[in-house]
Amino acid sequence: VSAAPGFATISFLSDFGLDDVFVGVCHGVLARLAPAARVIDLTHAVEPGDVRQGAALLARAVPHLPVAVHLAVVDPGVGTARRGVVVSTGRGDALVGPDNGLLPPAGDALGGVTGAWELAGGDRPPASATFHGRDVFAPAAAAVAGGAAPASLGPRIAGLDRLRPAHLRVDAGGRRVDAEVVLIDRFGNLQLAAAPAHVPVLGVRPGDAVEVSVDGRRWEAAYVRTFGDLAPGGLGLYEDSDGQLALAVNAGSAAELVGAARGAVVTIRAGRSGGGRLQVGDSGGPR
Amino acid sequence: VSAAPGFATISFLSDFGLDDVFVGVCHGVLARLAPAARVIDLTHAVEPGDVRQGAALLARAVPHLPVAVHLAVVDPGVGTARRGVVVSTGRGDALVGPDNGLLPPAGDALGGVTGAWELAGGDRPPASATFHGRDVFAPAAAAVAGGAAPASLGPRIAGLDRLRPAHLRVDAGGRRVDAEVVLIDRFGNLQLAAAPAHVPVLGVRPGDAVEVSVDGRRWEAAYVRTFGDLAPGGLGLYEDSDGQLALAVNAGSAAELVGAARGAVVTIRAGRSGGGRLQVGDSGGPR
Amino acid sequence: VSAAPGFATISFLSDFGLDDVFVGVCHGVLARLAPAARVIDLTHAVEPGDVRQGAALLARAVPHLPVAVHLAVVDPGVGTARRGVVVSTGRGDALVGPDNGLLPPAGDALGGVTGAWELAGGDRPPASATFHGRDVFAPAAAAVAGGAAPASLGPRIAGLDRLRPAHLRVDAGGRRVDAEVVLIDRFGNLQLAAAPAHVPVLGVRPGDAVEVSVDGRRWEAAYVRTFGDLAPGGLGLYEDSDGQLALAVNAGSAAELVGAARGAVVTIRAGRSGGGRLQVGDSGGPR
Repeated sequence: VSAAPGFATISFLSDFGLDDVFVGVCHGVLARLAPAARVIDLTHAVEPGDVRQGAALLARAVPHLPVAVHLAVVDPGVGTARRGVVVSTGRGDALVGPDNGLLPPAGDALGGVTGAWELAGGDRPPASATFHGRDVFAPAAAAVAGGAAPASLGPRIAGLDRLRPAHLRVDAGGRRVDAEVVLIDRFGNLQLAAAPAHVPVLGVRPGDAVEVSVDGRRWEAAYVRTFGDLAPGGLGLYEDSDGQLALAVNAGSAAELVGAARGAVVTIRAGRSGGGRLQVGDSGGPR
Repeated sequence: VSAAPGFATISFLSDFGLDDVFVGVCHGVLARLAPAARVIDLTHAVEPGDVRQGAALLARAVPHLPVAVHLAVVDPGVGTARRGVVVSTGRGDALVGPDNGLLPPAGDALGGVTGAWELAGGDRPPASATFHGRDVFAPAAAAVAGGAAPASLGPRIAGLDRLRPAHLRVDAGGRRVDAEVVLIDRFGNLQLAAAPAHVPVLGVRPGDAVEVSVDGRRWEAAYVRTFGDLAPGGLGLYEDSDGQLALAVNAGSAAELVGAARGAVVTIRAGRSGGGRLQVGDSGGPR
Repeated sequence: VSAAPGFATISFLSDFGLDDVFVGVCHGVLARLAPAARVIDLTHAVEPGDVRQGAALLARAVPHLPVAVHLAVVDPGVGTARRGVVVSTGRGDALVGPDNGLLPPAGDALGGVTGAWELAGGDRPPASATFHGRDVFAPAAAAVAGGAAPASLGPRIAGLDRLRPAHLRVDAGGRRVDAEVVLIDRFGNLQLAAAPAHVPVLGVRPGDAVEVSVDGRRWEAAYVRTFGDLAPGGLGLYEDSDGQLALAVNAGSAAELVGAARGAVVTIRAGRSGGGRLQVGDSGGPR
């Protein structure tokens, strides 16, 4: 996709927050070492050390970006023996970060991981023990953006560390889907580890009632296309902008209503009316 | 102002927050479709769905920017029948966002709204039902930045939805001004829907005492030029950097002192001393 | 370093926060007046009016950036008689901001302050009384980025206001170091006003136990290289990425454990075992 070697764009995701100067310092390093690259911040609000959340957010974002170097740093093991890596993808992107599970879902979302190389350090100045974003990963991302081949950064490695997959159980006989909450956004929408392709198992169609349960607590919801199809305060199951199933409350927060955190498992079944149209008053929640 | 068709700058305001990757994804779309444009983030901390706050912040910011495409997304009606629009202004800017009242105050601040066109979709890929920032508005903003005429995006429309104006009542006989709190900033300053031009009605001059009341509670304040003209903890009425009247506490928060939220109405009268100089001890608050 | 006059990069630090449009407006001014410059945000989350925190963060960040104009605005005295200044440094950078102590530590970190000029205003339009970031400092930073000599902005001044130095007392006889907490980061790490060069006074080597005390409360800690050298929940003293001594808790927050705020004084002595190796169970805290 990029005719010249290298990349015009570097994306950047971390758990550094914006209250310190960590992000600004990494931007400074990128500006020094890759002055021609445009840097796009994805987010820096990953919970400190939460590799799982970082991996989900990164995978969600990268397909919408230009082919780029994606620099990602959520690195609770900084300074220990965990490796730094650069990863190539089927679409032509490069991913740079720690080998702790953060990168592979993004690689999968970009046409698959096609290669991985350890960041061996080479003749770089010695890195600090606690800020590899600045001292190891940003310089490596800048080098790749400038045209360096991944293989020039270190030896090829056979496999990457991967996180356990998010919980998903599709029970066709029982007409239920159990799916982990993968992400919760600012609006309180709960993204699930299930897709619209799993809905037929439930025997419901758009507009139908569904039952949502978490830890034995139950809510009636509607399977809808968008928030505005719900009454204010109404709970809905819908296909979100990533193509995943998600729960939302119109003009409210599904996370607050359901009280579920990331990692909780949500069970979805057909609604009380057995899959019929949602009746007025059928939908639970604070309406 | 721009000799070549199109715009070198895209500004971007939303209620997406910075904790998710929504903003980063929109930056990615802009980088793909308008790689030459510089993107300036105005803020993404508009309260979720608060069109009124978003409109006030957008109108406050745009006059200080270069002539640009201003992309603004605060869109509680996403996926419903509300229209997306591109708006042209007297200064030569373009505004892109939902037709829900968000854009007109910014248009007014840029020399007036001179035209409006519906974003009709054309041959774009089908949009998600819940993320038009990514699928509709950012692509439209990128197209306009790249030189597309607004009329090429959809049919011209006659008028835009507008929010009710902020409350302002100037009572010359009663020597009082009642004005809505339009914005509250990080420092706790309360921007009012009144301007220095309304002060003569009160019969006060700079340095004079004024009385501020909200919901029956009253404070003595001073009409001053800047925070440093107040004793620490002192309440002041002043012309803010937007040319509006505002309330501030020196080295403190007027919002905390007065306990008023956006939308509250503040009444201002001459101070107890009838417009004379502020006496030591006259000024209320926690000093 | 820059062959052409002027600077390709402007860094920007403030206490404006990201919830208002102050930062976006300043970016707009920079884009209008210095369209060719790249702007790097260091942070805008300095506590409102906290010049001391702003100065520490700025000094921490600038050595890692390209030679640049560094625009910094933490300015509780806006609109009063305090001066605005542009400062030149030994490395070739320029610093622009209020003369209230914010800039000198950054100048020291950039090879020393080599000159300072007052921003005299010249023929600029009259500034607001409350937003000199927009009306005075950003325009001056843009002018310097565009090649204006500092001396063209106003008269040379003899000295800059400086903050009191952070407290540091190294007691070789008593084998203790007392050092002020200078910065606390998102991860709860406490950066101290002491450096590894002060450790020999304590008589400890890497891996040894040290005793940390604040206001009479005491904790056992280990002198380590990185977080991963500690058990989860263990308290460590280490050299941070700025080359300063700092306290951290592995997978936790030293700020929470120790309960110290910026400005508190931490005392460090050799551990109970008199400088011997850290014993299992020796390390305090919530492990």
